[in-house]
Amino acid sequence: MNKEQRQALLAKADYTLLGVTATEADYIKLCDEAVEYNVASVCVPPSRVALCANHLAGRVPVCAVVGFPNGYMDSRVKAYEAQVAIHLGATEIDMVIDIGRVKDADFDYVLEDIRAVRVACRGYVLNVIIEMVHLTLVEKIKLCAIVSDSGADYIKTSTGFDESGATFEDVALICKNVQPHVKVKTAGGITTLEDALRFVEMGANRLGTDRIIKLVQGLEGSGY
Amino acid sequence: MNKEQRQALLAKADYTLLGVTATEADYIKLCDEAVEYNVASVCVPPSRVALCANHLAGRVPVCAVVGFPNGYMDSRVKAYEAQVAIHLGATEIDMVIDIGRVKDADFDYVLEDIRAVRVACRGYVLNVIIEMVHLTLVEKIKLCAIVSDSGADYIKTSTGFDESGATFEDVALICKNVQPHVKVKTAGGITTLEDALRFVEMGANRLGTDRIIKLVQGLEGSGY
Repeated sequence: MNKEQRQALLAKADYTLLGVTATEADYIKLCDEAVEYNVASVCVPPSRVALCANHLAGRVPVCAVVGFPNGYMDSRVKAYEAQVAIHLGATEIDMVIDIGRVKDADFDYVLEDIRAVRVACRGYVLNVIIEMVHLTLVEKIKLCAIVSDSGADYIKTSTGFDESGATFEDVALICKNVQPHVKVKTAGGITTLEDALRFVEMGANRLGTDRIIKLVQGLEGSGY
Repeated sequence: MNKEQRQALLAKADYTLLGVTATEADYIKLCDEAVEYNVASVCVPPSRVALCANHLAGRVPVCAVVGFPNGYMDSRVKAYEAQVAIHLGATEIDMVIDIGRVKDADFDYVLEDIRAVRVACRGYVLNVIIEMVHLTLVEKIKLCAIVSDSGADYIKTSTGFDESGATFEDVALICKNVQPHVKVKTAGGITTLEDALRFVEMGANRLGTDRIIKLVQGLEGSGY
């Protein structure tokens, strides 16, 4: 993989830090690396949005997670969480759907839940995480339709939390079933830069990852 | 263990269902068992509070988790989440602290975060989850002091999520270090009814558990 290919991958990366024990210093490091490597965004918890937005000062967009990672918050609370995150400097929102309502087959609820957040962050980027590891094939296809109808900008495979990373099969399924106005994000599932490249070649527009810069640094270190 | 001992344990149990794929039918079953076995409360996600509160109609209190399980939401959002949960019928709130701020040694933030929720649910029961699996000994002792100062009713060992259950060592440490006006809750860590009894004998006032009724049913089935 040459330098241009690596840079193209980095430009699609949402550089992510969501561990509960991460410190202020860890977030500053994340932001500094995000600037140095020209990633698409940093993806952080709501309580770190202000820190990152202030430190980055517009050089890299900040994406805030909402209803994360379990998705079973009240819709009004998710909407307010998105509003607060935007107010603090986020320009992208990663929300998690309420998976229990999918299991109830209460798809009206799932759609309205997304729309509540969509309205709250109008004019900003909304990514909808459907946490595919918990879904049946029929539910995955149904969610592609719901997210397509919701006004969201992106559908995202997974939280990336709790070893629930994207799979190639799921990305293929999403790319086949989601409407063309909706872009596709992965989360996790990247062990090598070749994995990242394969996701992009399959149609992923963004890659949520906590390791892509380490992978690039490894290549640079090896002179590969 | 005789029937009176089992009933005394059940009366201290927060009967808990927090899996992301749990359905409406699962919550109805939880509530029906909670009534039948006379537990202290059901502990559920915000999006299921209305369902449980309506179904229980006051027979068993409903506890809602807030900022769960990662704790790194904005304080205003946690406060609003508590308000909405109370509005929907919860009378107890289980909030998670922002562990990253503990790691920053930003204890003022941690205290103000708890107080924001305390104000939002004044007159109701506030439990503060400190997720001890992530804390050093010094941090655990510091958190006992902060929760004692915060106006919270209970300190709780863990989310019980993600295999982070209570340990006997941690319960002993809390009981030694928390001020006497604060009560003690465990979460998880119960494999047998003897574990539950031991937590209570050590000083735990409440036991968050998803399995205590199964354990009691097992005993009843065996005629033990």
